[in-house]
Amino acid sequence: MRLAELSRRSGVSTATIKYYLREGLLPPGRQVNPTTAEYDEGHLRRLRLVRAMIQVGGIPVATVREVLRNVDDYALGRTIRLGAALWALPQVPEPDENDAFVRAAHREVDELLDRLGWSNAKLLTTISPSYRSLVVAVAAFRRLGYEWGFELLASYGRLMHEVAKLDLDFVETHPSEAEKAETAVLGSVLTEPMLQALRRLAQEEESGRRYGFE
Amino acid sequence: MRLAELSRRSGVSTATIKYYLREGLLPPGRQVNPTTAEYDEGHLRRLRLVRAMIQVGGIPVATVREVLRNVDDYALGRTIRLGAALWALPQVPEPDENDAFVRAAHREVDELLDRLGWSNAKLLTTISPSYRSLVVAVAAFRRLGYEWGFELLASYGRLMHEVAKLDLDFVETHPSEAEKAETAVLGSVLTEPMLQALRRLAQEEESGRRYGFE
Repeated sequence: MRLAELSRRSGVSTATIKYYLREGLLPPGRQVNPTTAEYDEGHLRRLRLVRAMIQVGGIPVATVREVLRNVDDYALGRTIRLGAALWALPQVPEPDENDAFVRAAHREVDELLDRLGWSNAKLLTTISPSYRSLVVAVAAFRRLGYEWGFELLASYGRLMHEVAKLDLDFVETHPSEAEKAETAVLGSVLTEPMLQALRRLAQEEESGRRYGFE
Repeated sequence: MRLAELSRRSGVSTATIKYYLREGLLPPGRQVNPTTAEYDEGHLRRLRLVRAMIQVGGIPVATVREVLRNVDDYALGRTIRLGAALWALPQVPEPDENDAFVRAAHREVDELLDRLGWSNAKLLTTISPSYRSLVVAVAAFRRLGYEWGFELLASYGRLMHEVAKLDLDFVETHPSEAEKAETAVLGSVLTEPMLQALRRLAQEEESGRRYGFE
C-alpha cells in the first residue's frame, strides 16, 4: 500500500507517519520509484504499536525506539526478548540499597519467590526491573508501618500468576514471533489501566454484596 | 504524645507535620496549655495515610484533602464511603461520548458486567469513575484495532474479583470504621504498583517455564 492508504487504515496522519519514519520508529517502505514507497501489513502493525506506546502509554520517543530494538532482536531467545522489550519501558527508580527497609524488602521478596515456587523469576532477579519494582513497593508499605501479611502477598502473587498465564496464552495466539513480541509490549501498555479499573469495579461489586448500599 | 514524639514515631519532620496541620490534612491536637498540644494514635495513623498518598502516590494536597473528607464522612454507608474515598483519587479523563469507540466500549463494558454477574457494580455505573476508566481503557485498544476477545476480558474480570475479595478481607481485619476507610485508600495507593510488579514477575516466571532461557 502507499503512504495515503497506510494513513487511512491506521488513522495516523501522513505527517506523523513521516515523523515516525525519520525517527526510525517505523522501518522504511520498499522504494518502487524515486518518489513512491510501498508499505505492508507489518508497517500497519508497527504503526499501531508505536501509537499505543506514545499516545496511550505516554512513553517518550527515545524509549519507544529502545523497546522496538529489543522487539526486533531475533538473536535473543523468546523469554529474554519479551522480557527485554518490557524492561525498556519506563520503570520505578532504583531501590536505595543503603536503606534498611529496602534490604529487608529484598529478603521478603526472595522468600516470596521461594514460597510461590517462582524459580525462573528467581534466576532473573539481578537483571529484572520487575523484581526491583516489587522490592520498592514492598519497602514503601513496610516503611509506612503497614502490616500487609506475607500470606496475603503470596495470595496476590498466585492470582497474578493466573493473570500472567492469560497474558501469555493471548500472546501465543499470534502466529509470528514479531507479533508475539509486539503483543507482549502492548499487553503491558494497554491492559494495565484495564486491570486496575476492573479491580476497582470488583471492589465496588464486592463491597455492595457485603455491606449493601444504605 | 507531644509533637516531637509524633514526629519521631511517624518519621515525618515537625515542620512537615505543622504544614499538614495548617492545610487541614491532620486534625488539630488536644490543646493542654496555650503552647502545647497532645496527639494520639489516630493522629499517627492519619499521618501515615497522608504521607503514603503524597510521597508514595504523588497525590496533590487538594486531592488528599478531598479523599480525607470522604473517609471521615460517617453519614455515608460503608460501600459508598469507601467508594467515595477512592473516587476522589486522580482518575482518567472523562470519556468523549461523541466518539463511536467510546459508545461501543460502553456497550461492551455493560455486557461484561452482565456476564460477570456484577449487578452491584452495575448500579453504580452513572457515578463510578472506575466504570469510566474501564470504558476508556477498552475504547483505547478497540480504537487501535486490537482483538482482545470478550471472553479474555471476562477471565481477567473474574481474577480481579478474587483480588478484590482479598482486598476487602484485609480491610475487614481492621477494627474501627476509620481504619477500614483508611486501609481501603492505602490499598489502592500502595498495592497497585505491587500488583503490577507481581504480574510482570509472573510473566517472566511463566515465560521461563514455557520457553526456557536459551
